[in-house]
Amino acid sequence: MTDSIKRVVLAYSGGLDTSVILKWLQVTYGCEVVTFTADLGQGEELEPARAKAELMGIKPEHIYIDDLKEEFVRDFVFPMMRANARYEGDYLLGTSIARPLISKRLVEIAKETGADAVAHGATGKGNDQVRFELSAYALNPDIKVIAPWRDWDLTSRTALIAWAEKHQIPVPKDKRGESPFSTDANLLHTSSEGKVLEDPWEETPDYVYSRTVNPEDAPDAPEYITIDFEHGDGVALNGQAMSPATLLAALNDLGRKHGIGRLDLVENRFVGMKSRGMYETPGGEIYARAHRGIESITLDRGAAHLKDELMPKYAELIYNGFWFAPEREMLQAAIDHSQQKVTGTVRLKLYKGNASVVGRKSPHSLYSERHVTFEDDAGAYDQKDAAGFIKLNALRLKLLARQSK
Amino acid sequence: MTDSIKRVVLAYSGGLDTSVILKWLQVTYGCEVVTFTADLGQGEELEPARAKAELMGIKPEHIYIDDLKEEFVRDFVFPMMRANARYEGDYLLGTSIARPLISKRLVEIAKETGADAVAHGATGKGNDQVRFELSAYALNPDIKVIAPWRDWDLTSRTALIAWAEKHQIPVPKDKRGESPFSTDANLLHTSSEGKVLEDPWEETPDYVYSRTVNPEDAPDAPEYITIDFEHGDGVALNGQAMSPATLLAALNDLGRKHGIGRLDLVENRFVGMKSRGMYETPGGEIYARAHRGIESITLDRGAAHLKDELMPKYAELIYNGFWFAPEREMLQAAIDHSQQKVTGTVRLKLYKGNASVVGRKSPHSLYSERHVTFEDDAGAYDQKDAAGFIKLNALRLKLLARQSK
Amino acid sequence: MTDSIKRVVLAYSGGLDTSVILKWLQVTYGCEVVTFTADLGQGEELEPARAKAELMGIKPEHIYIDDLKEEFVRDFVFPMMRANARYEGDYLLGTSIARPLISKRLVEIAKETGADAVAHGATGKGNDQVRFELSAYALNPDIKVIAPWRDWDLTSRTALIAWAEKHQIPVPKDKRGESPFSTDANLLHTSSEGKVLEDPWEETPDYVYSRTVNPEDAPDAPEYITIDFEHGDGVALNGQAMSPATLLAALNDLGRKHGIGRLDLVENRFVGMKSRGMYETPGGEIYARAHRGIESITLDRGAAHLKDELMPKYAELIYNGFWFAPEREMLQAAIDHSQQKVTGTVRLKLYKGNASVVGRKSPHSLYSERHVTFEDDAGAYDQKDAAGFIKLNALRLKLLARQSK
Amino acid sequence: MTDSIKRVVLAYSGGLDTSVILKWLQVTYGCEVVTFTADLGQGEELEPARAKAELMGIKPEHIYIDDLKEEFVRDFVFPMMRANARYEGDYLLGTSIARPLISKRLVEIAKETGADAVAHGATGKGNDQVRFELSAYALNPDIKVIAPWRDWDLTSRTALIAWAEKHQIPVPKDKRGESPFSTDANLLHTSSEGKVLEDPWEETPDYVYSRTVNPEDAPDAPEYITIDFEHGDGVALNGQAMSPATLLAALNDLGRKHGIGRLDLVENRFVGMKSRGMYETPGGEIYARAHRGIESITLDRGAAHLKDELMPKYAELIYNGFWFAPEREMLQAAIDHSQQKVTGTVRLKLYKGNASVVGRKSPHSLYSERHVTFEDDAGAYDQKDAAGFIKLNALRLKLLARQSK
Repeated sequence: MTDSIKRVVLAYSGGLDTSVILKWLQVTYGCEVVTFTADLGQGEELEPARAKAELMGIKPEHIYIDDLKEEFVRDFVFPMMRANARYEGDYLLGTSIARPLISKRLVEIAKETGADAVAHGATGKGNDQVRFELSAYALNPDIKVIAPWRDWDLTSRTALIAWAEKHQIPVPKDKRGESPFSTDANLLHTSSEGKVLEDPWEETPDYVYSRTVNPEDAPDAPEYITIDFEHGDGVALNGQAMSPATLLAALNDLGRKHGIGRLDLVENRFVGMKSRGMYETPGGEIYARAHRGIESITLDRGAAHLKDELMPKYAELIYNGFWFAPEREMLQAAIDHSQQKVTGTVRLKLYKGNASVVGRKSPHSLYSERHVTFEDDAGAYDQKDAAGFIKLNALRLKLLARQSK
Repeated sequence: MTDSIKRVVLAYSGGLDTSVILKWLQVTYGCEVVTFTADLGQGEELEPARAKAELMGIKPEHIYIDDLKEEFVRDFVFPMMRANARYEGDYLLGTSIARPLISKRLVEIAKETGADAVAHGATGKGNDQVRFELSAYALNPDIKVIAPWRDWDLTSRTALIAWAEKHQIPVPKDKRGESPFSTDANLLHTSSEGKVLEDPWEETPDYVYSRTVNPEDAPDAPEYITIDFEHGDGVALNGQAMSPATLLAALNDLGRKHGIGRLDLVENRFVGMKSRGMYETPGGEIYARAHRGIESITLDRGAAHLKDELMPKYAELIYNGFWFAPEREMLQAAIDHSQQKVTGTVRLKLYKGNASVVGRKSPHSLYSERHVTFEDDAGAYDQKDAAGFIKLNALRLKLLARQSK
Repeated sequence: MTDSIKRVVLAYSGGLDTSVILKWLQVTYGCEVVTFTADLGQGEELEPARAKAELMGIKPEHIYIDDLKEEFVRDFVFPMMRANARYEGDYLLGTSIARPLISKRLVEIAKETGADAVAHGATGKGNDQVRFELSAYALNPDIKVIAPWRDWDLTSRTALIAWAEKHQIPVPKDKRGESPFSTDANLLHTSSEGKVLEDPWEETPDYVYSRTVNPEDAPDAPEYITIDFEHGDGVALNGQAMSPATLLAALNDLGRKHGIGRLDLVENRFVGMKSRGMYETPGGEIYARAHRGIESITLDRGAAHLKDELMPKYAELIYNGFWFAPEREMLQAAIDHSQQKVTGTVRLKLYKGNASVVGRKSPHSLYSERHVTFEDDAGAYDQKDAAGFIKLNALRLKLLARQSK
Repeated sequence: MTDSIKRVVLAYSGGLDTSVILKWLQVTYGCEVVTFTADLGQGEELEPARAKAELMGIKPEHIYIDDLKEEFVRDFVFPMMRANARYEGDYLLGTSIARPLISKRLVEIAKETGADAVAHGATGKGNDQVRFELSAYALNPDIKVIAPWRDWDLTSRTALIAWAEKHQIPVPKDKRGESPFSTDANLLHTSSEGKVLEDPWEETPDYVYSRTVNPEDAPDAPEYITIDFEHGDGVALNGQAMSPATLLAALNDLGRKHGIGRLDLVENRFVGMKSRGMYETPGGEIYARAHRGIESITLDRGAAHLKDELMPKYAELIYNGFWFAPEREMLQAAIDHSQQKVTGTVRLKLYKGNASVVGRKSPHSLYSERHVTFEDDAGAYDQKDAAGFIKLNALRLKLLARQSK
């Protein structure tokens, strides 16, 4: 903790907690702090972070505020969606996938500014510390990482606020009390956990949701949309071409309106405990279903089943923070190889929490009405072949049964 | 086809197609036919099958009508649900899981009646022929299997009806025309495919659905239920103990009412082609979500992730007809081993197509508020441990990064 | 079988069996035959095949004799070796990996010569028919494949020879009697099966071996060699740069001399039965061990373990004939991605059947003496980190143990 | 480190290092020490440990010396061998599999003696600390674990010896200098690492080997043996029934004589670094090959391939110390389920480092000469079935190829 630090790049939101961290770094290490504030589509004004940083003495050229929305969706969310990744069957990894990008920029800015350390505001109980740090070390093995929440002794809210006041950090009135839960947000999702959510038997209170209307309050009429895919990635909504981040944002609006993408989950953290979280992934849920829809007619069975078998491990790697690990990259190479012909259009029905694929078409469709038809198939398929197919698939089972008699 | 057959047990529904098969077997093989009609909860009267069989000359003692509902749910559906099995990410395997049970009874009845063959009414293009036959061969390697649809030349509906009339088989008026789609039903689901569903871009018409109301017509108010589990299996609904089949039937009623469990899917058949199906699994969908819910607090992470990794293969085995194969049994042994403490209660909200887990509790819960809390945890977890944890997880990535510089 | 065939490309060895097939194709289909004889390093003179083909009326421009040794090793054997593929734990897939290349050329020649069919001499009981045909169909879905051994009625050696004589095909004296076993050979291996090998309790007789000396007759002094690798592929032996086929041939000489690469195996065929085979893979065995050796210091653990997990499926795909299937290509993409830094030198000791890695070095070595040393490591590794690492890895086990009390 | 400890059970070998630890525990914690010395077949006299312990003031009733050889082989080695486990393709896990048993006894003795802690002599860089501690925590979540090598400041040999002398611990003359490498031994193997082995390019010097003769010095004549298996476990050597430990010991003698089971490996430790080790597993190597041999005729393909796919993860779990984790137990359940008919006899040839299966037979053999024969098979197998089998396996590839044109 008391390593000598020259200059540190801090992932800085402009909020109270990271402001306290900023000051704490200055006080504890006597070092220069570079602030990095990322726009990942969390829906907050970021410019106020500049003023606050300046107020705490950060040099203007050491204040970084970057719009990373397109990079986030194009290089992180979409590749992950190609894999149909869901952690523990359900979670679309909205927080997990953002951390490596933040670390990547932290390490880049450290290089640009000659900093020898990076710092983040994640606690010592969660997954995010692991994700930040594994990514940072994988990108720069010599970087130092400071995680104040693991190091300082501000273990209660009261202590934190007292420390803030002692160090002249403005404490907004609404931050004085305890927040009833903790959140993380970006273009893909908002997560909430802690406090009122800590009893997994208690239903999530309505006021926790911020990104979606309650399905009960969603429109009474369904809405139909189409999403176009090229090589496994979404490129258009209702026929209108859109950039990755624009498409996801538009799907978020649709998902919010129709109450889509709420998930109440007890999950297993990498650090070994279970936690209960509430996720809202409105556009991501629609997108994920659409992607499976287009794959259903364009992916060969062998490719599709291999993807399904690899997915749990791939999702676990992202959840655990191993985005920049060789095995994640190997799996990505396999997955990306499968997406060359995943091109076409999916039609979905959105209605009160449901996002259902109702149609799919593609110039590369592998679906053959000629083969599957109950009608005369003009010789496309010889039903007698099935007899031999079954006989040879059964052979080992027969030999086994004979031996077991 | 022209093997000499002495006596054959036919999976007989009492409908036109299997009646034609019954007669065709008599005519073609000159053999005795034993009929077997299973009640798997498909919701049809089975006694008429007896009269029809008798009319075609089947001896009373050769007419089997068995209620297999409890065995079906207890020994097939529930074990499969323990694995959270979904084929290609979505399909709950409602047809696949029924076939091995039918074959098991066919083989048992063959033994009881001294028959040397069994026969089924599945076509040569589908998965069911494979499932029937692999199961039959695995249980009796010496049994002969007759699949008339692969052997005869009745390749059009017209030909079939002409043949029926020629052989004095009554053809109900509503069976003269083509059915607009083909169905299979049991206590777990109803599937529909073919004809009007053959274009995967066209939305499934409303009249295809038979087991669920349209979510738009479902009640405007949500309904909350609880399901109790013991050792991985459901045992009670809303606190009321129920047998497996009774529980599934009650969940079906709830699912029907709330429009839950509709699935429109293009899937990959084992015989090599893609097909589009529509599935309604009202109770099964609720049950599957509840099972994941109870596992989320009672299963250790290592067990849960291993289950997720094994699931695609397990589901594929069932889909492809390998229920009675050693590798399915091995996977089942692993899965069942994990379910010893999967006991507790799940609370779900049912609303217009959604079945959402909103609460879970268990005497064996591994969820520890003490560990996860944002509040003071009284030393349950030392945040400093995380530093070492991350450092050693990062070590290989650092060594790699250093080498790659 | 009696499809109208215009022109067929036959995989032709020049031996009695494929000569009979050649004539049988002419007689049965009245079609033109194009012969294709591949030099895969099987160590036989191929030019005699030309004379024999001409004798049976094949047009000179329809006689193809191709040296495929370099393509075989570079594009098939080496990519497979990158995966450390061994079927059922042991078999280095020497026959399996040659079949797709032969099919690729058959299909190419069919295109060049305007042929509508290809033919091969594999029997209906083995794996090779599957490998030939799956590859052919994957490369040209409209090609017809003729497999005479499945179609004709020449079911005994006597019948075959009688048919040959009736059709004026010269029958060499040593082919009159039954061969005591059946073989397949190429640059990677020689396999033997059948007849004297059919009882798996009986030791393989000495005369079956043709590619290796008996270890007991190998030199009494060990020989040390080095193999250099670049990006996962062998490039030099004892410091001398060699092409893929040249390197494998040189290793074959070494392996032969030292009695390396004999394998007596009962394996599971794709068609459902077990068979007993004897394989000699002298150079391949040395190469496979060397490849693992170089990976051991250049591959990250995550990459290495993922490869080990994927390998059985990859090997099975090749064994079953799915070289040209999307899932094999996906796995290859993942494997190849891992080999970028698999560069360096392996030293092996060859001695009486043993090929042991005794040293390995690489400019990209991830082995760090600084970290691993029992001596003072100058702070490279902080042993206290291990405490936190273990604590968090143990957390879930502790929570579970507490619950189970 | 300075937790209050009442009584601690120490894994005590009687050697200098654990004697220093014993004293250090007394000095540092002022607590009572219970010593546990396990006979795992490491081939050392254990009674001297008693005298030494008494000399350091350990109460007689607190000195445990247990012969665990049969438990070790029966409940740990054999179950692992059922899985054909090899870590990173080669390592037979001789050290890894012994640690959980030692921890199990430590925890049991802690309970018997009312101790609140256990202690071990593994360093902070290795895998063994993880294995000891994960096992201990999984069996008793409230136990404290003391790992002196991570805590004390005796970081050099000189410091350790000085401390020993200061505390009146006798230092044998041959322990004054540095040992040229470090070893671990038990009935399954001896491992050596460190010092002279730290450069992976240097061949292991001859003097490092202690359990096997150099293959060059092994007998010039091969020796044939048979091993009988029942339900997956070895039960007899050359027809003579033996207990598990007796069988393994007898195979060790044979392996030693014929120079079998030497392995020079660079492996990936769980703590993140690569290390180079030399293993001698004479009997284990013979046994492992024999087990695969008996499986080759008694295991169905589906079971065998599933085992091969699960093996790398199973081996990794054992290597990493997760023997007492639910996922290892789940995999064991699957593996054990497969071994019911793995009964029969394997014949092996031992010769100068080679242990080759040359014959196998079983009352449950699934190998069917009738099916595999090149001769007339009397209708056991209809070659025409293969045509349909291939056609349907090819269907998806054809549809794909057609679409890709």
